[in-house]
Amino acid sequence: MSIDERLLTPLYERMVEWRRHLHRHPELSFKENETSAMIAELLSSWGLDVTRGVAGTGVVARLQGGLPGRTIALRADIDALPIQDEKECEYASTVPGVMHACGHDGHTAQLLAVARYYSLNQERTAGTRVFLFQPGEEVLPGGALGMIRDGALEGVDAIYGVHLWSPYPYGKIATRPGPFMASPDEFEIEIVGRGGHAGLPHQATDALVAGAHLVVALQTIVSRNVDPLESAVVSVGQLQAGTARNVIAERCYLSGTVRTFTPEARAAIRQRLEEVARHVCDMHGADQALTYYEGYPPVVNDEREAARVLRVAGALHADGPVGLCERIMAGEDFSYYLRERPGCFFFVGAGEADGSAAPHHHPKFDLDERAMLHAARLLIGVADDAAGERA
Amino acid sequence: MSIDERLLTPLYERMVEWRRHLHRHPELSFKENETSAMIAELLSSWGLDVTRGVAGTGVVARLQGGLPGRTIALRADIDALPIQDEKECEYASTVPGVMHACGHDGHTAQLLAVARYYSLNQERTAGTRVFLFQPGEEVLPGGALGMIRDGALEGVDAIYGVHLWSPYPYGKIATRPGPFMASPDEFEIEIVGRGGHAGLPHQATDALVAGAHLVVALQTIVSRNVDPLESAVVSVGQLQAGTARNVIAERCYLSGTVRTFTPEARAAIRQRLEEVARHVCDMHGADQALTYYEGYPPVVNDEREAARVLRVAGALHADGPVGLCERIMAGEDFSYYLRERPGCFFFVGAGEADGSAAPHHHPKFDLDERAMLHAARLLIGVADDAAGERA
Amino acid sequence: MSIDERLLTPLYERMVEWRRHLHRHPELSFKENETSAMIAELLSSWGLDVTRGVAGTGVVARLQGGLPGRTIALRADIDALPIQDEKECEYASTVPGVMHACGHDGHTAQLLAVARYYSLNQERTAGTRVFLFQPGEEVLPGGALGMIRDGALEGVDAIYGVHLWSPYPYGKIATRPGPFMASPDEFEIEIVGRGGHAGLPHQATDALVAGAHLVVALQTIVSRNVDPLESAVVSVGQLQAGTARNVIAERCYLSGTVRTFTPEARAAIRQRLEEVARHVCDMHGADQALTYYEGYPPVVNDEREAARVLRVAGALHADGPVGLCERIMAGEDFSYYLRERPGCFFFVGAGEADGSAAPHHHPKFDLDERAMLHAARLLIGVADDAAGERA
Amino acid sequence: MSIDERLLTPLYERMVEWRRHLHRHPELSFKENETSAMIAELLSSWGLDVTRGVAGTGVVARLQGGLPGRTIALRADIDALPIQDEKECEYASTVPGVMHACGHDGHTAQLLAVARYYSLNQERTAGTRVFLFQPGEEVLPGGALGMIRDGALEGVDAIYGVHLWSPYPYGKIATRPGPFMASPDEFEIEIVGRGGHAGLPHQATDALVAGAHLVVALQTIVSRNVDPLESAVVSVGQLQAGTARNVIAERCYLSGTVRTFTPEARAAIRQRLEEVARHVCDMHGADQALTYYEGYPPVVNDEREAARVLRVAGALHADGPVGLCERIMAGEDFSYYLRERPGCFFFVGAGEADGSAAPHHHPKFDLDERAMLHAARLLIGVADDAAGERA
Repeated sequence: MSIDERLLTPLYERMVEWRRHLHRHPELSFKENETSAMIAELLSSWGLDVTRGVAGTGVVARLQGGLPGRTIALRADIDALPIQDEKECEYASTVPGVMHACGHDGHTAQLLAVARYYSLNQERTAGTRVFLFQPGEEVLPGGALGMIRDGALEGVDAIYGVHLWSPYPYGKIATRPGPFMASPDEFEIEIVGRGGHAGLPHQATDALVAGAHLVVALQTIVSRNVDPLESAVVSVGQLQAGTARNVIAERCYLSGTVRTFTPEARAAIRQRLEEVARHVCDMHGADQALTYYEGYPPVVNDEREAARVLRVAGALHADGPVGLCERIMAGEDFSYYLRERPGCFFFVGAGEADGSAAPHHHPKFDLDERAMLHAARLLIGVADDAAGERA
Repeated sequence: MSIDERLLTPLYERMVEWRRHLHRHPELSFKENETSAMIAELLSSWGLDVTRGVAGTGVVARLQGGLPGRTIALRADIDALPIQDEKECEYASTVPGVMHACGHDGHTAQLLAVARYYSLNQERTAGTRVFLFQPGEEVLPGGALGMIRDGALEGVDAIYGVHLWSPYPYGKIATRPGPFMASPDEFEIEIVGRGGHAGLPHQATDALVAGAHLVVALQTIVSRNVDPLESAVVSVGQLQAGTARNVIAERCYLSGTVRTFTPEARAAIRQRLEEVARHVCDMHGADQALTYYEGYPPVVNDEREAARVLRVAGALHADGPVGLCERIMAGEDFSYYLRERPGCFFFVGAGEADGSAAPHHHPKFDLDERAMLHAARLLIGVADDAAGERA
Repeated sequence: MSIDERLLTPLYERMVEWRRHLHRHPELSFKENETSAMIAELLSSWGLDVTRGVAGTGVVARLQGGLPGRTIALRADIDALPIQDEKECEYASTVPGVMHACGHDGHTAQLLAVARYYSLNQERTAGTRVFLFQPGEEVLPGGALGMIRDGALEGVDAIYGVHLWSPYPYGKIATRPGPFMASPDEFEIEIVGRGGHAGLPHQATDALVAGAHLVVALQTIVSRNVDPLESAVVSVGQLQAGTARNVIAERCYLSGTVRTFTPEARAAIRQRLEEVARHVCDMHGADQALTYYEGYPPVVNDEREAARVLRVAGALHADGPVGLCERIMAGEDFSYYLRERPGCFFFVGAGEADGSAAPHHHPKFDLDERAMLHAARLLIGVADDAAGERA
Repeated sequence: MSIDERLLTPLYERMVEWRRHLHRHPELSFKENETSAMIAELLSSWGLDVTRGVAGTGVVARLQGGLPGRTIALRADIDALPIQDEKECEYASTVPGVMHACGHDGHTAQLLAVARYYSLNQERTAGTRVFLFQPGEEVLPGGALGMIRDGALEGVDAIYGVHLWSPYPYGKIATRPGPFMASPDEFEIEIVGRGGHAGLPHQATDALVAGAHLVVALQTIVSRNVDPLESAVVSVGQLQAGTARNVIAERCYLSGTVRTFTPEARAAIRQRLEEVARHVCDMHGADQALTYYEGYPPVVNDEREAARVLRVAGALHADGPVGLCERIMAGEDFSYYLRERPGCFFFVGAGEADGSAAPHHHPKFDLDERAMLHAARLLIGVADDAAGERA
């Protein structure tokens, strides 16, 4: 594997340009119409075989290299978030309340650069490259399922994806074999008791007290019911009960999130959540309804493909540390691709050395744009490495 | 004690008229300007010695009887509530969002009738009568304190008040010696933790979990710290925490009410409330601020005066049962008068025989207006009985 | 009603003698063989109509007065407690581990004196007196039920009983109409989970954590489910769980008591106890078994008979205050008699003026023996008053 | 690295003999006098340089090889447990209530065999071997600290230890780089309230309710205060409160264990334990005293040395799988050595293929003795590999 830096390096300026254009014109999940049009137009102009309307607003492009080899998919997500951009810079969002606050603009730009690279280097490319520009990563059920349903993985041997990661300093590359990113499920519980005069509790069924007992009891799921060697979180993020100081609450609304890394832990926690909610409310004589929203499955990197990414990164990447990282409590619908094909999702540092960069989803989020070049180089290196392997 | 029914009975029609006028034109606490003007005008027209502007919008009138005797005060409260009248009748409230939903219009009308009675019967009246038309019973700190401060009890030997009571059927008269109505204190607790990513609880201080533990711990105040022979309630009416499913709540707001009948229980519960809130939040590493709003003190009827009311009612009242009732978990600022003078507060049934009358503070609250005649007769009987007694 | 003090006063010395004899020779519940023999022998020697073997070791005696009148029963309980006497005095218990630590020796002695009084005053006595020397007041299900079953109340019009009461100073007499002494039910809960290595909680079912949650949840019964105007207590007295620091507890044993004054509160609490135990343990996946021991019903004094006792005491008792007292959280099987016949149970002070007397059931418990004379006088006075009344 | 199997294999019979002798004559921690004498005698007879009385009853022996190389320590623990042997076999314990129920007899025998091997192969051995026969692994504070204090690690470059592991089938070899075995701390909490009549909770301070709230609150340590990527357990194993159903508990005793793998988690949990205990008891008005017993630190294997063990095992071990294992919630004082020197602790399967072997510390615990040969071979292979490396 070797990369033609004479082709790649000059693309950096284009990446910045594309990324800033997208940053100025962000589009919400599954409404990435202009984004999609721009992507398709560029890819077509470079001679790739482009399919639009995949998973709604997604784009898939294929390029067959001049040499024999395997078919390798590379994926970028393209959607923005319903957040008001608070940055003051010339490329700040021009759309009120919408912002590329998670770096998907960078993901899109760098994958465009990778596609352009291959279009310039097609003859010397082994195997086929499939470029997945996926919509709607930010909202359940995610765009990955639609991409798969619409055939994006057909003929694909392996798939790779990258997240520009602002908690990591510019220069760092990291991933992890096996369970890597969490399954971020969510839930809502509605407790219905019977309201009443605050001075006459025996005539009422206090939904607020039931809700408080429920929150307390839910703590035992992680403390008692989950294997301590597993990483799992159950957090109740919201509790809303009652309307007046002197009236016993008839209703109590709770919502929260469950984070797990294995199907076993996920299933066990969901079951305990249902049991605990039901029995605590039965105990108080209140009714309850639990709605459980399955988030993406955990991102589980193939052991061999993770090793490949680290090996290639070690060889290609001169700008900073490459290594294993801990599990991450956030989720990603890249997990769906990894259930279908071997592959690896990895992080490319795009933050400050002192960790001071604004976190993802923050109104002042920004990227160190140079990280896009790291990401593009690594995607090419990994794809070429994987394509050249005997199936 | 004997009542001149030839004077009293014809006043019934006036009571209804006055009450309905007030019902159509309700005024909120401490803004009872028109109400006050009407009261003062009528009292003056009957020759009473009227003082306006007592406790702001209150009215006090005095009438000295032709015979020697003690000075007896009778009190009505005159304010309405910020509730939208939902009744459909010709005397429904004409003021949007304001309504006489607690019967103070009836209290005012019946005390006007009593004053008119005495003005017609002045020569045969023993002692002095003081009529207190008090503003602002419905909002803390209540109008009673201002009435007292402005001299309404000067020279008064005993004081009586009545509440038309819709949970009791028309015809019933009841009261209770000693602690009768609760002290309805209120509190707010603001817990401040540190928000954070729902998947990273160890980096946050979960105010919602602290609030849930607090609600659970507060249950021990009544179950463990209050004398079981006391009647006391601690109810948390509201809990609001968190803004999103996947964010750990930084803040948790609780509010509630404390109901007690004795200063000891009240002080003990307030102290425990402060201790429990402080220590539970300390335990979770969260800050908290408790604001405690002292409601009215408990209404504690003088034993002898309660006996007088029951005795007089037994003698005068032919329309229904007279007797002891249980304590009532609601509060009343009549309690302030009873801390200054002997006296008794009592209930006159104004509801349905089957208990189906809308409760007080309900948008469809109404009175059986005939109860006003019961109340007026009883006020006169009790006042005459008390006035004739040797001091 | 008048009492022949020339007959009564000289009996004081005998009472002391009898009481001290019994105090030296205490017998446990339902094993009061010597006690019973002594009672029967004395009563027979005075010419009363004696029945032995009532409710096992109980004695009933009847005496028909020379004048017409109603049949009045007077009751004493005669059993001792499994407590080691720690007093140092010449009449201390000679039976290791058994002691009259609740004053039943005094109750027996004073009722013997009353019987002796009537035997000396038979001709001038109106109506019939029935003397109930009841076994086993201290252990469930109590001796009263057996006494009733064996006919002790046959022909009886009213019944009275007294408790010498060491928390009250010598000289004080008190009782209360209506609910007076609590129903002291007890319960045991056995929770069975699944033990395991303390480091592997997910493989176990932690009975200790279930038990702790249960104790916490039980607090809501009194705080939320009982009418605050009721007096009720739910106390868990014992919790025993686990055998080692580093092993998860397989079993958790709880025991406690429920105190109530009305059948409604009693039934409601029992039901809630069962519901809470079941649902909390279901919530934790543990099994549980609740055993509920019904204690005596609440002692509910007849309103009229309580008034009689207070009236008679007011007239006869010159040595101290007579009055109403608060409810008492202890129980008494005298309650069974009061479910069958009108009557009244009352307290005669036998403690120190400064409240320093050892409490009932304490190893240093003792009586001010002079209180026996108060009790005997009052029993005679009340019985004569009740007997003379037209049925 | 190559092992002279002609020297090693014949030692198997001796290992079995030594192990069974020790099994018949187990000695408790720090009382391993006969064990120690036997070890020293054998080592001396083979010409090793033996030091007795290390850490009390420990033995250290040194052997300098004929070739240059590093100094490698190998450790066995030698103490038995206070458990009654329930096995029926000819080598069952002859000491009532004492038993080698954790396999330390096997550890001792296999390390003796290793020493014997080296004594037979001295000329061809590179570097120095130090054999640590450590007393008292089973009781805090463990014998390792004393071994270190007494100089057992002087000049040592690396150290290795093995545990015969009955949960793993015979044939399996496993370890893990980094945190491997937990830090097993323990704690006791004594809560002191104020006892009292179960019917009068307001006069008491209920230590049982405080204890229950404490258990519930302790669940939040793992659920909220520990990084979910850490493995940690807080288990309360025992709770004992109260003496009678109808008496409020004055005292509540809790004990439990804390398992962690990092100093950060350990310190954080200990601090939270203290805070939660203090604030919960303050909240209830009870006193408390927490005693915290530091167990061994976590066993943290050097990354490189763990890789060495796995590599050597992969090369030498033909009988079964070699690989990474999960963290283990048990503790080991081998951790102290690893804080001083690079090294690795690893497991050699000695159980049944179907997992049916009795667990460690069980009265029927036994070993598949053939595992001793695996262990000895691996210790020699690893030591030789490590000794030959350039420092």
